[in-house]
Amino acid sequence: MSHTRPQPVTSDKLYFSFVGTPESLLEDYQQVRDHSKKLCQPLRVEDYVVQSMDDASPTKWHLAHTSWFFETFVLARFRSNYRSSHPQYSFLFNSYYVQAGDRYPRPLRGLVTRPTVAEVFEYRDDIDQEMVKLIEQASQDIWEALASIIEIGIHHEQQHQELILTDIKHVLSFNPLYPTYVEQAPTLDRSVAETKWISFQEGLYRIGHDGKGFCYDNEMSLHQYFLEGFQLANRLVTNGEYLEFIEDGGYGNPTLWLSDGWSTVAQEGWQAPLYWEKTDGQWKHYTLHGIRLVNPAEPVCHISLYEADAFAHWAGTRLPTEEEWETASSKLPARGNFVHTEAYHPLPLSQPPANGELAQMFGDLWEWTQSPYTCYPGYKPMTGVLGEYNGKFMSNQMVLRGGSCATSQSHIRNTYRNFFPPAARWQFSGIRLARDA
Amino acid sequence: MSHTRPQPVTSDKLYFSFVGTPESLLEDYQQVRDHSKKLCQPLRVEDYVVQSMDDASPTKWHLAHTSWFFETFVLARFRSNYRSSHPQYSFLFNSYYVQAGDRYPRPLRGLVTRPTVAEVFEYRDDIDQEMVKLIEQASQDIWEALASIIEIGIHHEQQHQELILTDIKHVLSFNPLYPTYVEQAPTLDRSVAETKWISFQEGLYRIGHDGKGFCYDNEMSLHQYFLEGFQLANRLVTNGEYLEFIEDGGYGNPTLWLSDGWSTVAQEGWQAPLYWEKTDGQWKHYTLHGIRLVNPAEPVCHISLYEADAFAHWAGTRLPTEEEWETASSKLPARGNFVHTEAYHPLPLSQPPANGELAQMFGDLWEWTQSPYTCYPGYKPMTGVLGEYNGKFMSNQMVLRGGSCATSQSHIRNTYRNFFPPAARWQFSGIRLARDA
Amino acid sequence: MSHTRPQPVTSDKLYFSFVGTPESLLEDYQQVRDHSKKLCQPLRVEDYVVQSMDDASPTKWHLAHTSWFFETFVLARFRSNYRSSHPQYSFLFNSYYVQAGDRYPRPLRGLVTRPTVAEVFEYRDDIDQEMVKLIEQASQDIWEALASIIEIGIHHEQQHQELILTDIKHVLSFNPLYPTYVEQAPTLDRSVAETKWISFQEGLYRIGHDGKGFCYDNEMSLHQYFLEGFQLANRLVTNGEYLEFIEDGGYGNPTLWLSDGWSTVAQEGWQAPLYWEKTDGQWKHYTLHGIRLVNPAEPVCHISLYEADAFAHWAGTRLPTEEEWETASSKLPARGNFVHTEAYHPLPLSQPPANGELAQMFGDLWEWTQSPYTCYPGYKPMTGVLGEYNGKFMSNQMVLRGGSCATSQSHIRNTYRNFFPPAARWQFSGIRLARDA
Amino acid sequence: MSHTRPQPVTSDKLYFSFVGTPESLLEDYQQVRDHSKKLCQPLRVEDYVVQSMDDASPTKWHLAHTSWFFETFVLARFRSNYRSSHPQYSFLFNSYYVQAGDRYPRPLRGLVTRPTVAEVFEYRDDIDQEMVKLIEQASQDIWEALASIIEIGIHHEQQHQELILTDIKHVLSFNPLYPTYVEQAPTLDRSVAETKWISFQEGLYRIGHDGKGFCYDNEMSLHQYFLEGFQLANRLVTNGEYLEFIEDGGYGNPTLWLSDGWSTVAQEGWQAPLYWEKTDGQWKHYTLHGIRLVNPAEPVCHISLYEADAFAHWAGTRLPTEEEWETASSKLPARGNFVHTEAYHPLPLSQPPANGELAQMFGDLWEWTQSPYTCYPGYKPMTGVLGEYNGKFMSNQMVLRGGSCATSQSHIRNTYRNFFPPAARWQFSGIRLARDA
Repeated sequence: MSHTRPQPVTSDKLYFSFVGTPESLLEDYQQVRDHSKKLCQPLRVEDYVVQSMDDASPTKWHLAHTSWFFETFVLARFRSNYRSSHPQYSFLFNSYYVQAGDRYPRPLRGLVTRPTVAEVFEYRDDIDQEMVKLIEQASQDIWEALASIIEIGIHHEQQHQELILTDIKHVLSFNPLYPTYVEQAPTLDRSVAETKWISFQEGLYRIGHDGKGFCYDNEMSLHQYFLEGFQLANRLVTNGEYLEFIEDGGYGNPTLWLSDGWSTVAQEGWQAPLYWEKTDGQWKHYTLHGIRLVNPAEPVCHISLYEADAFAHWAGTRLPTEEEWETASSKLPARGNFVHTEAYHPLPLSQPPANGELAQMFGDLWEWTQSPYTCYPGYKPMTGVLGEYNGKFMSNQMVLRGGSCATSQSHIRNTYRNFFPPAARWQFSGIRLARDA
Repeated sequence: MSHTRPQPVTSDKLYFSFVGTPESLLEDYQQVRDHSKKLCQPLRVEDYVVQSMDDASPTKWHLAHTSWFFETFVLARFRSNYRSSHPQYSFLFNSYYVQAGDRYPRPLRGLVTRPTVAEVFEYRDDIDQEMVKLIEQASQDIWEALASIIEIGIHHEQQHQELILTDIKHVLSFNPLYPTYVEQAPTLDRSVAETKWISFQEGLYRIGHDGKGFCYDNEMSLHQYFLEGFQLANRLVTNGEYLEFIEDGGYGNPTLWLSDGWSTVAQEGWQAPLYWEKTDGQWKHYTLHGIRLVNPAEPVCHISLYEADAFAHWAGTRLPTEEEWETASSKLPARGNFVHTEAYHPLPLSQPPANGELAQMFGDLWEWTQSPYTCYPGYKPMTGVLGEYNGKFMSNQMVLRGGSCATSQSHIRNTYRNFFPPAARWQFSGIRLARDA
Repeated sequence: MSHTRPQPVTSDKLYFSFVGTPESLLEDYQQVRDHSKKLCQPLRVEDYVVQSMDDASPTKWHLAHTSWFFETFVLARFRSNYRSSHPQYSFLFNSYYVQAGDRYPRPLRGLVTRPTVAEVFEYRDDIDQEMVKLIEQASQDIWEALASIIEIGIHHEQQHQELILTDIKHVLSFNPLYPTYVEQAPTLDRSVAETKWISFQEGLYRIGHDGKGFCYDNEMSLHQYFLEGFQLANRLVTNGEYLEFIEDGGYGNPTLWLSDGWSTVAQEGWQAPLYWEKTDGQWKHYTLHGIRLVNPAEPVCHISLYEADAFAHWAGTRLPTEEEWETASSKLPARGNFVHTEAYHPLPLSQPPANGELAQMFGDLWEWTQSPYTCYPGYKPMTGVLGEYNGKFMSNQMVLRGGSCATSQSHIRNTYRNFFPPAARWQFSGIRLARDA
Repeated sequence: MSHTRPQPVTSDKLYFSFVGTPESLLEDYQQVRDHSKKLCQPLRVEDYVVQSMDDASPTKWHLAHTSWFFETFVLARFRSNYRSSHPQYSFLFNSYYVQAGDRYPRPLRGLVTRPTVAEVFEYRDDIDQEMVKLIEQASQDIWEALASIIEIGIHHEQQHQELILTDIKHVLSFNPLYPTYVEQAPTLDRSVAETKWISFQEGLYRIGHDGKGFCYDNEMSLHQYFLEGFQLANRLVTNGEYLEFIEDGGYGNPTLWLSDGWSTVAQEGWQAPLYWEKTDGQWKHYTLHGIRLVNPAEPVCHISLYEADAFAHWAGTRLPTEEEWETASSKLPARGNFVHTEAYHPLPLSQPPANGELAQMFGDLWEWTQSPYTCYPGYKPMTGVLGEYNGKFMSNQMVLRGGSCATSQSHIRNTYRNFFPPAARWQFSGIRLARDA
């Protein structure tokens, strides 16, 4: 195996402009690194090791991989004479950056028991020491390039923090002892107000990010898009509403489903959202707080695009396009039930939204759109090895918007485009309904 | 098994308006029915039976299914006291219309040896007799509904005629004796002129069909779409150009490929387009005229979206969006190398296109676009059982435009949207390049 | 592809001694060749083409392969200057003789529509003409080698004749129209006498064939085997008895099954023998005479070793070993309901066996033994390419004895060892019970 | 889920007679329980959790399951008013005893992170305390039944101790860092003496166990078996000899292989024994002491029955039958390189065996025989739930004899029958050659 390393390219020209100071960058860096550790506090050593499906990774791997990212794309390129303390980790903890060298096969990540959890935390500490030095001592001529890549690394780690939560939830859910991630009193509200429809006018809108401050390359370029008039529901679909769909035979009625969705339902035997089970006539679901009764007032979550689409059809509506979602949310603050509220679960609306307002657009749950994930007009991938970050996934994935209870608030923008295959259910994903004006 | 039949609904309101007379409809009907027979003339009884993969169907099945369509959606609904001469065929030859009753599993179609080929042709004749009588005697009050559905059935049969050719090509290609469908002298041109780029201006364009005359529901509604300036290549990519991609290691360079595409290349061991093989240092490919040397001047065909996309990346370009393609072709006549030229293969350009003109936009090969197949704004599926025709396939399929050497010219419009999964290669599919202005 | 052909080796020394004359050999040859044609008379062209599973082959393939066998192992070796009229068939119709050259992949046999059925029959005629000449004109010095190999070829064709029947039954069974192979009045007996147990004494017995006259290599060498005292049931298990097992929950009780058998039951969803289905509360099964009510007096057939073994456990008995079966049958004439009775189905015992006698030991159904198929002490495979005939299959197959209603009587001996994997069900296989003395 | 527990059946009549005293039983119990702990000393917490394939189990599972065995089959049945401290473990740690209640699916064992390793050791301690009390206080009327089942439990734990080693070796082998289980100096001998053949005469021999002292039910009943004269090689086949087979193209020559074996070679891409890899022209293999050069003098190990059989063919010999092996070893002491030598690997013969003597018959490696695993004449499975222990696996498994470097010496007898599927390679399995006299 050859462990090719990308060469220092201090002349990287990025598609966004870094706005910040060395001090703010250092603070952001340290906060994000601390948050990863915090998320792991409830875990036992055994929990870190397991990979429960090909799409998920062990906690240990996430912790090491995010450090490897800084080592490979920052330290090895910007720190002169940098020598890795663990060169063999490069092979183990590369994810998919083909140009960054060989990598260990993804589906086997759960077989690697060494380095141990303690050794991975030591590795993180080593990297952090070097990173802090580098940020503090960076010369002016590399600063713009350095700061931009570190900012990408920070956002990259935030993505993996979300996966740490969704992946460990998936692992623990297989355990018939139903271990909790953290204990928490269940939410008490049992009902929510009726959905109201908020209208938006037809017109030519601007979609995408202007590149001032951080964004991912897939949010660019800023372009015009013509929208017909449309309406969005003022809140997320609830468990109670979804139960009506189930009880109406939604999972058994092929005319509601996309053809691929119907095949998936049959093949996987889906009868309800992921983590739901019916025992003694009652629907329960596994949550990060253990097994609980399904609360009809909570937003329904852990559903696939297929289920979201079938539900929307059943309700005589449809899912929004990503352009509709972005237009509707363009004036809203990106605040909500994000990971720092420590709910680790979507929350019921405690009171109805004010007239004409959209609730739950940010946080709580990623909202499936009916838009396949494709490139915007004028899209230019990042140059170099980071060019593999986004563009190559633009096939058979669907766009989700708005962030979830597992996302960091500082990670989200109204232009942010998340994407998953239409059958994915282990993310905190839910339904916002739309209809033609 | 219950064989539910849809009830007569003479009040069907369709999304398009039928333009024609009883006489023209009868002529269209008879022409399309004759064409199916003509396509079968070169076949031996043995050829009709085989199903070479789940996605394909036996010739015999296509012949019976298209008749079943008229029987089920026309005769059983519009002919009073209609009694099928073969009620059990309803189960065997339904394709996917869930609401039209149970159906025989698709992957097993190749196991059904009876009815025999002769019996299937008798079945067709029975249906035709009834259909002719119905068209000739239809009363005015059902005419509009009747004529519209028959027109759908005619276009439906044209789609299956194309599949008869592509499916039998797939079957015969497995035979090491390389049987020909028809003999034909190979095309002689060995070179084509350089590609030129044709420019189109940014602007707000109309996309979709206005519903006057026949279209499929997926072409509606007519809507506005903003396009940035773009350029299209004035001809299709040739085998010669594609060979350069192969020889440059295109199939071995992951950075050129969509992630799903790269997995598919690895899993399927793709090294060249479907039907290509290299023997004694020479590339040959199986065609409907038998095994032939690859002619560098012919358009490259039988490639997947993944290969088209990788080639475009390698060439520093991209694939067009479907809106770009439709806008660029909106003034062009829908003429070209369609099935009635009886070439059954794409043809080299015998002379360069006139300045500023696009060649090969219609016929020769379906052109992959970078657009996933989704619904247009304001899309309304057909009501009733035919509502399953298009909408439910809007998941993980990509749009192709323009028709091929296996398509009937009368089947195609500039708004016509074909769709296949990105890994499909057995259709006559090729590459038109695009780039930003 | 290189089409290596085995070289003439007239000095082959075989393990058995041919007993017969040129005239008797010619008669045997012509009879076996005619019988293949006779078996095909009820078929339509379409039926010959299809392969319904990897383990089965199209009728057309059987017809061509048995001719290829004579061409490759007899004509090409013993006829000077022999030139095949269809050298490309060698690749298409080789089954598994690795040393006889490349071969077309088995699971794709059903995709080869050409040569047509008519062409295959012409091929057979060509071979027959050459074979007759060769037999008639053979010189003395090659006679022994020639005659022995032809005799193997005759027995080889008889094996494929049995497969023609079992494979076409499998094909036709997929057809919801339930076509018949031949019409026939159903058997009328509805009950049979109670099973009686026939005892055999412990002792050292001779097992295997002495090599005088034809046998397969796997029947040798003749050796001694010590048997404890045992008992055999005097007839086959009936459908009526097997229905008791089903109704007693036999398919749902894991303690009755071998572990592999239980996995297979779960995976395949077995609830009854192959070809059985319950409609409107009645068990029916598909037979070569179409779909019929299950007759409780007929021997149960189309069961796997797993089902035979589970039934035996349920009944408090066991299956016989092959040595027990051979010892018990050593004095019996090899007569019974073989293929030439044209019943194509096992028959109920019309009257109870005489006291102390075993009935149905030959014909009707192959009887599963509890003996894995292994080599006898001193086993020597045939030399040369025919060495691949038997020995290499001695892994995870079980021995069956006695022949079936699809077997030629002249093919069977009391030492004959048939073998199939324990999950195979498409052969005419049934149950003879045994127990310790 | 209902957690059915077997009821106390103090009248169990076992097929063997317990020979020993309460003191000796207590000592045996404590030794075996200590040995499990000792085997785990080199492991880190992370190592205990992982399941590397369906056939293997996590160390943690083995530790818990062996305790569950004593709890379920001893404490719950013989200790009055016994209440499990962890009733939910019954579901998690049942292996395949259908009658002992529901069980967690085997392929998911590696997903269960809780109970933690520490909790599993606590569970073991709880069980041990109860077991010691029970043994010390057992009344005379239950003693025979109790002691017999505990003895089965002791042998059961010894089987799992062997699996702890082979399963953890499999886990660690996936790690590109090649962690060692224990460090050890490599063996130094590089050559061994030529094989000599030891002869045994034809005759009627006694095979099986007489039931005095412990044995498994599959070793009974004692019966007569006629053997032709045969010869056994006086030592195991070495890596050096196996390398000749590899270099002679053994893995590429289909005529050497069983048909199933050849398919497996193709499907799995086998080119050498498990754990072997060739880097820079040198063969290395992963061992419990890390990655090492292949020593030509060591016995070849981690091969399947298919490879053993192909090697034997290549060498012009064959594998022994289990009756030959048992006859040849009947006078030998069951001593050798077992687990307590702590080599954890087969050892080269330091000096040639004395004239006429067999070496390495016990310990070092399990020796594949050509005998499928079937029941002996007169076989009676244990009654009750333990009846599932052996009999139901008598399908498509092959017998191995003699124990390995991972086996406890006290576990082995000359009549001991181990069994694995013919493709299994992760056990310490090797080759002893045989031939006809």
